[in-house]
Amino acid sequence: MVSQDFKSMLSGKSVIRQLSEYATARGAEIGYENVYDYSLGNPSVPVPKAFTDAMIRLLTEEDPMKLHGYSQSQGIPAVRQAHAGYLNKRFGMNYTAEHLFMTTGAAGAIAHAVRAVTKPGDEVITFAPFFPEYMQYVNRTGAELVIVPADTKTFQIDMDALRDAFTEKTAAVLINTPNNPSGAMYTGETLTALAALMSEMQEKYAHEIFLISDEPYREIVFDGKIAPYPAHFYDNTLTCYSYSKSLSIPGERIGYVAVNPKAVDADIISVMCGQISRGLGHNCPPSIIQLAVSEVLGETADLSVYETNMNILYDELVSLGFEVTRPGGTFYIMPRALGGDSLEFCNKAKEYDLILVPADSFGAPGFFRMAYCIDTDKVERSLDALRRFVRDKY
Amino acid sequence: MVSQDFKSMLSGKSVIRQLSEYATARGAEIGYENVYDYSLGNPSVPVPKAFTDAMIRLLTEEDPMKLHGYSQSQGIPAVRQAHAGYLNKRFGMNYTAEHLFMTTGAAGAIAHAVRAVTKPGDEVITFAPFFPEYMQYVNRTGAELVIVPADTKTFQIDMDALRDAFTEKTAAVLINTPNNPSGAMYTGETLTALAALMSEMQEKYAHEIFLISDEPYREIVFDGKIAPYPAHFYDNTLTCYSYSKSLSIPGERIGYVAVNPKAVDADIISVMCGQISRGLGHNCPPSIIQLAVSEVLGETADLSVYETNMNILYDELVSLGFEVTRPGGTFYIMPRALGGDSLEFCNKAKEYDLILVPADSFGAPGFFRMAYCIDTDKVERSLDALRRFVRDKY
Repeated sequence: MVSQDFKSMLSGKSVIRQLSEYATARGAEIGYENVYDYSLGNPSVPVPKAFTDAMIRLLTEEDPMKLHGYSQSQGIPAVRQAHAGYLNKRFGMNYTAEHLFMTTGAAGAIAHAVRAVTKPGDEVITFAPFFPEYMQYVNRTGAELVIVPADTKTFQIDMDALRDAFTEKTAAVLINTPNNPSGAMYTGETLTALAALMSEMQEKYAHEIFLISDEPYREIVFDGKIAPYPAHFYDNTLTCYSYSKSLSIPGERIGYVAVNPKAVDADIISVMCGQISRGLGHNCPPSIIQLAVSEVLGETADLSVYETNMNILYDELVSLGFEVTRPGGTFYIMPRALGGDSLEFCNKAKEYDLILVPADSFGAPGFFRMAYCIDTDKVERSLDALRRFVRDKY
Repeated sequence: MVSQDFKSMLSGKSVIRQLSEYATARGAEIGYENVYDYSLGNPSVPVPKAFTDAMIRLLTEEDPMKLHGYSQSQGIPAVRQAHAGYLNKRFGMNYTAEHLFMTTGAAGAIAHAVRAVTKPGDEVITFAPFFPEYMQYVNRTGAELVIVPADTKTFQIDMDALRDAFTEKTAAVLINTPNNPSGAMYTGETLTALAALMSEMQEKYAHEIFLISDEPYREIVFDGKIAPYPAHFYDNTLTCYSYSKSLSIPGERIGYVAVNPKAVDADIISVMCGQISRGLGHNCPPSIIQLAVSEVLGETADLSVYETNMNILYDELVSLGFEVTRPGGTFYIMPRALGGDSLEFCNKAKEYDLILVPADSFGAPGFFRMAYCIDTDKVERSLDALRRFVRDKY
């Protein structure tokens, strides 16, 4: 008999998916160029040429037996070594190949990281607003996701609310900076305070509490800043990365877990991830993709369009009277909906072919998300629709 | 605190891995060409040029946004459609795209298939000898792997033993044909009898019992035969495939689940697999690899070397007096060890630089496995060592 558990999941379709499908259908009617589709977080700039060149070089020059052969369950040693070297140089860390575990994107990274440092029944704290898939990533391991309410002024961390969330069962804290959907980037002050509180709680409960840091938007940071590297602030940190956004290759499913060398059991966590893989059917990401990303470390797609789009939208939203926190990175912005009801707001917006996503499922009721990973031309053309929408309806 | 469950797995190193590492170390001493390494099931022939050409064409001609973009969680629709069409033509089935779920190899396929048709506490029956990873693939879902003893004469299925293994909790039967490690290929008679017994048990217990058919060696079949297609024999069949062996791309992690259109809930199982993925961090295999394999459907690497090697080894083993069943496919052969103790036998063989694997961990104590996916020249040179070993020691 098919699993009733998974069968029961079929009825729910995500709001984002519904809106994206609506946008596509509407596009078939009036031309997709006339639909201001802010629904999906899909990169809108092409992969850098260096990645394509690396793939072609591997295919044409490498021994196919070696190129397409099994890699170690932790990932190809040379690939892990290259990642360690790059991260050490970039962030002043002391990783070796043993601290790296190659994964199928951030989803694969978090799936392994959570299992590595929790047991069923444990609690994993995260912060609203959060990527809704965190529910699956954590709860499907047998641990439980505990959500700390948002600080809706700055979208940094409400440390008092966090303090209240810790229990004897807290095994990990899961952060996402820069953040989907708010666009907020945690400051050094936030990470310092987070580390201090986590250290205090480790002492109080007399067991390790790991920081799982989900950083797929690390390279999309505005105003010339660099995202503070959470592992710098807290020893027991597992950094989860994906190349989906930085290289514009979300379909190729490649990322990693980097275990802070100062973490407890730092020397075995990556090996444990290899064991975890056996039960997940994961068995490391494709060899050629591992090799290709390790040849273009430090490269990114041309990410500047996201900052351009953010500035255009932020200025317009502010001038239209929206309450909105200026994003520090990502390709999202999350204003408060006018009228208070974000579902109603987003529904009305459809009349103007503005596809906006209520942020309720992200744990931010009353807000909406705009994914501005679209052409700047369309962003500019959408402003008139946004103005008319606000003028007509509010 | 790190997971004590996964930490406890670190102490055990597989026998195959130990022997493979020994072979590598010994190779450093005397030259690897002089080590008759039959330990690892790694393809020994290169990927077909058509796959490489397809990859390069995709990289040079396709729109990179489309090529590297997210695919649906079930896999790229056109890729699933192409697979359905190919399987229909090849095996006379009636798949549509909706019956296909693209996976990261057979490991990924089984991880999803087991979860789709079992719940924690259910039993999944398999047959000795079996790929040891089945323990992880099944038991880590919360279901329990139940092992039916081998028919050590033919390595087909002992139907009486199978009948005894069914209980109210049996949710699935997991087969692997052609088989790792025995090389046996299930005959039409075996599959007919299996289907009849499973149908009887479905009726007896009044619930579906699914057949999960693991077929990575489907294309490596000897004597000009074609492997009978299990889904033809039994409606509730989930076919799990990997391109690792047929295309010699084990590192690229690509395969699929094909749901028999006649299965109960056939129209939703692939969609359920998409839901299952969310908790496993899987999120479909890389887009470019999906697209490339769908362009070379029906192509294989030059697999003829495996049959050549099998015939050389089989004849020699028989003439040396080994009890051995002639493989119908794969690149494995599994003779009975001389002297009865396969561990002792394989240990003594190392003195002759013959690296043989005791089949005890495969559920076949007293047997050993030879993976003859190596150069024919080395197979031929190994015969003298094999003769000397048998003459000296037995």
